[in-house]
Amino acid sequence: MYIESLENLINSFRSLPGVGYKTAQRYAYSILNRDIQDAKQFAQNIVSAKENIKFCNECGNFSESEICETCRKKNKDIICVVKEPKDVATMEKVKNYDGVFHVLGGTISPLENRGPDDIRIKELLSRVQKYNTKEVIMALNPDVEGDATAMYISKLLSPLGVKVTRLAQGISMGSELEFTDEVTLSKAMESRTKI
Amino acid sequence: MYIESLENLINSFRSLPGVGYKTAQRYAYSILNRDIQDAKQFAQNIVSAKENIKFCNECGNFSESEICETCRKKNKDIICVVKEPKDVATMEKVKNYDGVFHVLGGTISPLENRGPDDIRIKELLSRVQKYNTKEVIMALNPDVEGDATAMYISKLLSPLGVKVTRLAQGISMGSELEFTDEVTLSKAMESRTKI
Repeated sequence: MYIESLENLINSFRSLPGVGYKTAQRYAYSILNRDIQDAKQFAQNIVSAKENIKFCNECGNFSESEICETCRKKNKDIICVVKEPKDVATMEKVKNYDGVFHVLGGTISPLENRGPDDIRIKELLSRVQKYNTKEVIMALNPDVEGDATAMYISKLLSPLGVKVTRLAQGISMGSELEFTDEVTLSKAMESRTKI
Repeated sequence: MYIESLENLINSFRSLPGVGYKTAQRYAYSILNRDIQDAKQFAQNIVSAKENIKFCNECGNFSESEICETCRKKNKDIICVVKEPKDVATMEKVKNYDGVFHVLGGTISPLENRGPDDIRIKELLSRVQKYNTKEVIMALNPDVEGDATAMYISKLLSPLGVKVTRLAQGISMGSELEFTDEVTLSKAMESRTKI
């Protein structure tokens, strides 16, 4: 049995991250099992999202308008710098942060041929100057590229008199010491706090 | 950040089997990261599949025509009965089978309120008579419902003088005896074959 439109649909689902043939087939069958209205709505949601969602001119996050709601409403004294839009969604869950975000769109990575000019660092500097920002929090992944990018940006920011901080590194809540890696433990030891 | 068209897309992806919020979000971001043509093609493939694919009047499998290619071309002396369309895709990989299929569209399940008239048993009987079929192979899942359905159908078929068989049960190729469950081992013992 070779059904062209079924194979096309399976191939579309396979283009999603982490989806293999079996999973794509399962998704395709689930589409065939719903009514046509529902399938059309699904298709419409794909096109609408792509057509309506642009990047915010300020923070670089996804937005339906030129300037996103967060940038319009939130306090610009403090900017939280993240790598990708999905990190904004994660950081927004942090209750005790009420400032704006800045999406770099990647980290500096010589291996992947991505230098400082390929990510939104210039935009960050001009925002800091424009809004006279007091603090920039680097919320990048705690890996080599994230650390290098954070260091690079903090060097550029220091002449502007802005405080540059980064998320604390240490052991996770609920984790077991036994299974925590040595680098994390040594960072946690370095930054130990008084009880 | 609440972006309506992004949330709609995430909800669409969440309607796929086994997809939670995080995965749906990842899929949605992957859509936003491709170009508009690709997104439109994805959407089009969903609608086309749903619009073009019907059920074959003979075997009940998905088909783009009234009678599917398998039913038009293959030997009808032997019919392999399966539960769902996806099982046809699986059984088609079996090299030494060259007959047609029959999709029941479910198994008899009193718990889910599905009786013999709710699945395509009548259609199977009339095919067997129409084509004077010699053998019907029950390729249902080896569980309570599958076994009960197979028994029920074989009772209806026996007066028609057709041979009813089912897939052998036993240990899987490459499996370890140690991890094979007792029911499977006892079935394999019962049906032991001469070397």
